[in-house]
Amino acid sequence: MNISHIEHIGIAVENLEESIKYYEQVLGMKCYSIEEVVDQKVKTAFFLVGDTKIELLESTSPDGPIGKYIAKKGQGIHHIAFAVPDATKALKTAEERGVLLVDKVSRKGAEGLNIGFLHPKSTQGVLTELCSKK
Amino acid sequence: MNISHIEHIGIAVENLEESIKYYEQVLGMKCYSIEEVVDQKVKTAFFLVGDTKIELLESTSPDGPIGKYIAKKGQGIHHIAFAVPDATKALKTAEERGVLLVDKVSRKGAEGLNIGFLHPKSTQGVLTELCSKK
Repeated sequence: MNISHIEHIGIAVENLEESIKYYEQVLGMKCYSIEEVVDQKVKTAFFLVGDTKIELLESTSPDGPIGKYIAKKGQGIHHIAFAVPDATKALKTAEERGVLLVDKVSRKGAEGLNIGFLHPKSTQGVLTELCSKK
Repeated sequence: MNISHIEHIGIAVENLEESIKYYEQVLGMKCYSIEEVVDQKVKTAFFLVGDTKIELLESTSPDGPIGKYIAKKGQGIHHIAFAVPDATKALKTAEERGVLLVDKVSRKGAEGLNIGFLHPKSTQGVLTELCSKK
Protein backbone atom coordinates (compact mmCIF):
# COMPACT_ATOMS: atom_id res chain seq x y z
CA MET A 1 0.00 0.00 0.00
CA ASN A 2 2.76 2.46 1.03
CA ILE A 3 0.66 5.56 1.73
CA SER A 4 3.04 8.56 1.88
CA HIS A 5 0.61 11.35 2.83
CA ILE A 6 -2.92 12.63 2.49
CA GLU A 7 -3.08 13.84 -1.09
CA HIS A 8 -6.27 15.81 -0.56
CA ILE A 9 -9.52 16.19 1.35
CA GLY A 10 -12.56 16.44 -0.92
CA ILE A 11 -15.30 18.80 0.26
CA ALA A 12 -18.74 18.95 -1.39
CA VAL A 13 -20.01 22.53 -1.74
CA GLU A 14 -23.13 24.08 -3.23
CA ASN A 15 -21.47 27.19 -4.60
CA LEU A 16 -17.80 27.01 -5.58
CA GLU A 17 -17.35 30.76 -5.86
CA GLU A 18 -18.71 31.46 -2.36
CA SER A 19 -16.67 28.64 -0.83
CA ILE A 20 -13.47 29.86 -2.51
CA LYS A 21 -14.15 33.26 -0.91
CA TYR A 22 -14.45 31.62 2.53
CA TYR A 23 -11.22 29.61 2.17
CA GLU A 24 -9.35 32.65 0.86
CA GLN A 25 -10.79 35.52 2.89
CA VAL A 26 -11.53 33.78 6.19
CA LEU A 27 -8.94 30.98 6.35
CA GLY A 28 -6.30 32.83 4.34
CA MET A 29 -5.58 30.08 1.81
CA LYS A 30 -4.95 30.64 -1.91
CA CYS A 31 -6.87 28.83 -4.67
CA TYR A 32 -4.21 27.77 -7.19
CA SER A 33 -6.37 25.92 -9.71
CA ILE A 34 -9.96 25.55 -10.89
CA GLU A 35 -10.70 22.55 -13.07
CA GLU A 36 -13.78 20.82 -14.47
CA VAL A 37 -13.80 17.01 -14.41
CA VAL A 38 -16.45 16.33 -17.04
CA ASP A 39 -17.03 12.60 -16.44
CA GLN A 40 -17.48 13.21 -12.69
CA LYS A 41 -19.79 16.18 -13.37
CA VAL A 42 -17.87 18.46 -11.01
CA LYS A 43 -16.02 21.73 -11.01
CA THR A 44 -13.12 21.65 -8.53
CA ALA A 45 -10.98 24.25 -6.79
CA PHE A 46 -7.65 23.41 -5.15
CA PHE A 47 -5.77 24.90 -2.19
CA LEU A 48 -2.39 23.76 -0.82
CA VAL A 49 -2.17 23.32 2.98
CA GLY A 50 1.17 21.84 4.10
CA ASP A 51 1.68 18.62 2.12
CA THR A 52 -2.08 18.17 1.62
CA LYS A 53 -4.67 19.84 -0.59
CA ILE A 54 -8.24 20.94 -0.04
CA GLU A 55 -10.35 20.04 -3.09
CA LEU A 56 -13.68 21.85 -3.21
CA LEU A 57 -16.25 20.08 -5.38
CA GLU A 58 -19.31 21.73 -6.92
CA SER A 59 -21.63 19.55 -8.98
CA THR A 60 -22.29 20.64 -12.55
CA SER A 61 -25.42 18.46 -12.64
CA PRO A 62 -27.97 17.24 -10.04
CA ASP A 63 -27.43 13.63 -11.21
CA GLY A 64 -23.65 13.67 -10.67
CA PRO A 65 -22.12 12.01 -7.58
CA ILE A 66 -21.61 15.32 -5.74
CA GLY A 67 -25.08 16.57 -6.67
CA LYS A 68 -26.60 13.38 -5.26
CA TYR A 69 -24.40 13.53 -2.17
CA ILE A 70 -25.44 17.10 -1.33
CA ALA A 71 -29.13 16.29 -1.96
CA LYS A 72 -28.88 13.42 0.55
CA LYS A 73 -26.40 14.66 3.16
CA GLY A 74 -25.87 18.37 2.56
CA GLN A 75 -22.56 20.14 2.09
CA GLY A 76 -19.52 18.81 3.94
CA ILE A 77 -16.41 16.65 3.86
CA HIS A 78 -16.95 14.12 1.08
CA HIS A 79 -13.81 11.99 0.88
CA ILE A 80 -10.20 11.55 1.92
CA ALA A 81 -7.51 10.71 -0.66
CA PHE A 82 -4.25 8.98 0.20
CA ALA A 83 -1.18 9.25 -2.04
CA VAL A 84 0.32 5.89 -3.04
CA PRO A 85 3.06 5.02 -5.55
CA ASP A 86 0.66 3.07 -7.83
CA ALA A 87 -3.13 3.46 -7.44
CA THR A 88 -4.07 0.32 -9.41
CA LYS A 89 -1.67 -1.84 -7.38
CA ALA A 90 -2.93 -0.29 -4.13
CA LEU A 91 -6.55 -0.98 -5.13
CA LYS A 92 -5.59 -4.62 -5.78
CA THR A 93 -3.86 -4.85 -2.39
CA ALA A 94 -6.93 -3.38 -0.65
CA GLU A 95 -9.17 -5.93 -2.41
CA GLU A 96 -6.88 -8.78 -1.36
CA ARG A 97 -7.23 -7.49 2.22
CA GLY A 98 -11.01 -7.82 2.02
CA VAL A 99 -12.02 -4.29 0.97
CA LEU A 100 -14.95 -3.76 -1.39
CA LEU A 101 -13.90 -1.50 -4.29
CA VAL A 102 -15.78 1.19 -6.18
CA ASP A 103 -13.04 1.10 -8.87
CA LYS A 104 -11.29 -2.17 -9.76
CA VAL A 105 -8.58 -0.30 -11.65
CA SER A 106 -7.58 3.33 -11.45
CA ARG A 107 -9.01 5.96 -13.77
CA LYS A 108 -8.06 9.55 -14.55
CA GLY A 109 -9.07 12.15 -11.95
CA ALA A 110 -8.46 15.85 -11.36
CA GLU A 111 -4.89 17.15 -11.78
CA GLY A 112 -4.11 14.21 -14.09
CA LEU A 113 -3.78 11.76 -11.19
CA ASN A 114 -4.64 8.07 -11.39
CA ILE A 115 -7.41 7.56 -8.86
CA GLY A 116 -9.70 4.87 -7.51
CA PHE A 117 -12.16 4.60 -4.62
CA LEU A 118 -12.67 2.07 -1.84
CA HIS A 119 -16.30 1.47 -0.88
CA PRO A 120 -17.44 3.20 2.35
CA LYS A 121 -19.05 -0.09 3.43
CA SER A 122 -15.54 -1.48 3.91
CA THR A 123 -14.02 1.66 5.41
CA GLN A 124 -16.36 2.50 8.31
CA GLY A 125 -18.27 5.07 6.30
CA VAL A 126 -15.25 7.00 5.01
CA LEU A 127 -15.24 7.35 1.22
CA THR A 128 -11.56 6.67 0.59
CA GLU A 129 -9.60 7.47 -2.56
CA LEU A 130 -6.17 6.14 -3.47
CA CYS A 131 -4.23 8.17 -6.00
CA SER A 132 -0.88 8.24 -7.74
CA LYS A 133 0.95 10.42 -10.22
CA LYS A 134 1.12 9.29 -13.85
CA MET B 1 -4.94 33.13 10.80
CA ASN B 2 -1.66 31.67 9.41
CA ILE B 3 -2.69 28.02 8.89
CA SER B 4 0.50 25.98 8.41
CA HIS B 5 -0.96 22.53 7.69
CA ILE B 6 -3.84 20.17 8.42
CA GLU B 7 -3.15 19.05 11.98
CA HIS B 8 -5.58 16.13 11.78
CA ILE B 9 -8.72 14.68 10.25
CA GLY B 10 -11.23 13.49 12.87
CA ILE B 11 -13.18 10.35 11.97
CA ALA B 12 -16.17 9.12 14.01
CA VAL B 13 -16.14 5.33 14.42
CA GLU B 14 -18.39 2.89 16.25
CA ASN B 15 -15.65 0.52 17.35
CA LEU B 16 -12.16 1.91 17.88
CA GLU B 17 -10.48 -1.49 18.05
CA GLU B 18 -11.95 -2.67 14.72
CA SER B 19 -11.13 0.63 13.02
CA ILE B 20 -7.53 0.56 14.28
CA LYS B 21 -7.24 -2.90 12.71
CA TYR B 22 -8.47 -1.53 9.37
CA TYR B 23 -6.04 1.44 9.39
CA GLU B 24 -3.15 -0.81 10.39
CA GLN B 25 -3.79 -4.03 8.49
CA VAL B 26 -5.45 -2.68 5.34
CA LEU B 27 -3.95 0.80 4.93
CA GLY B 28 -0.62 -0.07 6.59
CA MET B 29 -0.55 2.83 9.07
CA LYS B 30 0.63 2.58 12.67
CA CYS B 31 -1.41 3.71 15.68
CA TYR B 32 1.04 5.63 17.89
CA SER B 33 -1.30 6.74 20.69
CA ILE B 34 -4.64 5.92 22.29
CA GLU B 35 -6.07 8.57 24.60
CA GLU B 36 -9.34 9.22 26.38
CA VAL B 37 -10.63 12.81 26.40
CA VAL B 38 -13.03 12.65 29.33
CA ASP B 39 -14.84 15.98 28.88
CA GLN B 40 -15.52 15.19 25.20
CA LYS B 41 -16.65 11.64 26.08
CA VAL B 42 -14.38 10.07 23.47
CA LYS B 43 -11.58 7.57 23.17
CA THR B 44 -9.16 8.55 20.40
CA ALA B 45 -6.52 6.74 18.36
CA PHE B 46 -3.86 8.60 16.35
CA PHE B 47 -1.96 7.75 13.16
CA LEU B 48 0.68 9.90 11.43
CA VAL B 49 0.30 10.31 7.63
CA GLY B 50 2.80 12.77 6.15
CA ASP B 51 2.48 16.02 8.12
CA THR B 52 -1.13 15.23 9.08
CA LYS B 53 -2.76 12.84 11.54
CA ILE B 54 -5.82 10.64 11.39
CA GLU B 55 -7.72 10.87 14.69
CA LEU B 56 -10.25 8.07 15.16
CA LEU B 57 -12.99 8.95 17.67
CA GLU B 58 -15.15 6.43 19.51
CA SER B 59 -17.79 7.75 21.87
CA THR B 60 -17.64 6.60 25.48
CA SER B 61 -21.28 7.64 25.98
CA PRO B 62 -24.36 7.91 23.71
CA ASP B 63 -24.90 11.51 24.88
CA GLY B 64 -21.40 12.70 23.91
CA PRO B 65 -20.87 14.72 20.69
CA ILE B 66 -19.53 11.71 18.74
CA GLY B 67 -22.27 9.41 20.05
CA LYS B 68 -24.90 11.89 18.89
CA TYR B 69 -23.15 12.41 15.56
CA ILE B 70 -23.07 8.69 14.78
CA ALA B 71 -26.71 8.26 15.85
CA LYS B 72 -27.70 11.01 13.38
CA LYS B 73 -25.28 10.61 10.48
CA GLY B 74 -23.50 7.28 10.93
CA GLN B 75 -19.76 6.69 10.97
CA GLY B 76 -17.55 8.89 8.80
CA ILE B 77 -15.34 11.96 8.56
CA HIS B 78 -16.34 14.22 11.43
CA HIS B 79 -14.07 17.28 11.28
CA ILE B 80 -10.94 18.84 9.86
CA ALA B 81 -8.40 20.55 12.12
CA PHE B 82 -6.01 23.24 10.93
CA ALA B 83 -2.77 24.03 12.79
CA VAL B 84 -2.33 27.70 13.66
CA PRO B 85 0.25 29.49 15.86
CA ASP B 86 -2.40 30.57 18.45
CA ALA B 87 -5.85 28.97 18.50
CA THR B 88 -7.53 31.67 20.62
CA LYS B 89 -6.21 34.45 18.36
CA ALA B 90 -7.29 32.52 15.25
CA LEU B 91 -10.80 32.02 16.69
CA LYS B 92 -11.01 35.76 17.28
CA THR B 93 -9.84 36.49 13.72
CA ALA B 94 -12.46 34.07 12.34
CA GLU B 95 -15.17 35.79 14.37
CA GLU B 96 -14.06 39.22 13.12
CA ARG B 97 -14.40 37.81 9.60
CA GLY B 98 -18.03 36.87 10.24
CA VAL B 99 -17.70 33.24 11.32
CA LEU B 100 -20.02 31.83 14.01
CA LEU B 101 -17.94 30.11 16.71
CA VAL B 102 -18.61 26.97 18.76
CA ASP B 103 -15.76 28.01 21.11
CA LYS B 104 -15.09 31.68 21.86
CA VAL B 105 -11.71 30.83 23.39
CA SER B 106 -9.60 27.72 22.99
CA ARG B 107 -9.81 24.80 25.42
CA LYS B 108 -7.65 21.74 25.99
CA GLY B 109 -8.07 18.90 23.49
CA ALA B 110 -6.36 15.59 22.75
CA GLU B 111 -2.54 15.55 22.73
CA GLY B 112 -2.50 18.62 25.00
CA LEU B 113 -3.34 20.98 22.11
CA ASN B 114 -5.31 24.19 22.51
CA ILE B 115 -8.37 23.74 20.32
CA GLY B 116 -11.56 25.51 19.30
CA PHE B 117 -14.29 24.90 16.73
CA LEU B 118 -15.92 27.06 14.08
CA HIS B 119 -19.63 26.42 13.57
CA PRO B 120 -20.51 24.36 10.46
CA LYS B 121 -23.23 26.93 9.62
CA SER B 122 -20.43 29.39 8.78
CA THR B 123 -18.16 26.88 7.03
CA GLN B 124 -20.43 25.27 4.43
CA GLY B 125 -21.15 22.23 6.58
CA VAL B 126 -17.53 21.44 7.47
CA LEU B 127 -16.97 21.18 11.23
CA THR B 128 -13.66 23.04 11.44
CA GLU B 129 -11.19 22.97 14.33
CA LEU B 130 -8.31 25.38 14.86
CA CYS B 131 -5.52 24.13 17.10
CA SER B 132 -2.16 25.20 18.41
CA LYS B 133 0.55 23.77 20.64
CA LYS B 134 0.78 24.99 24.21
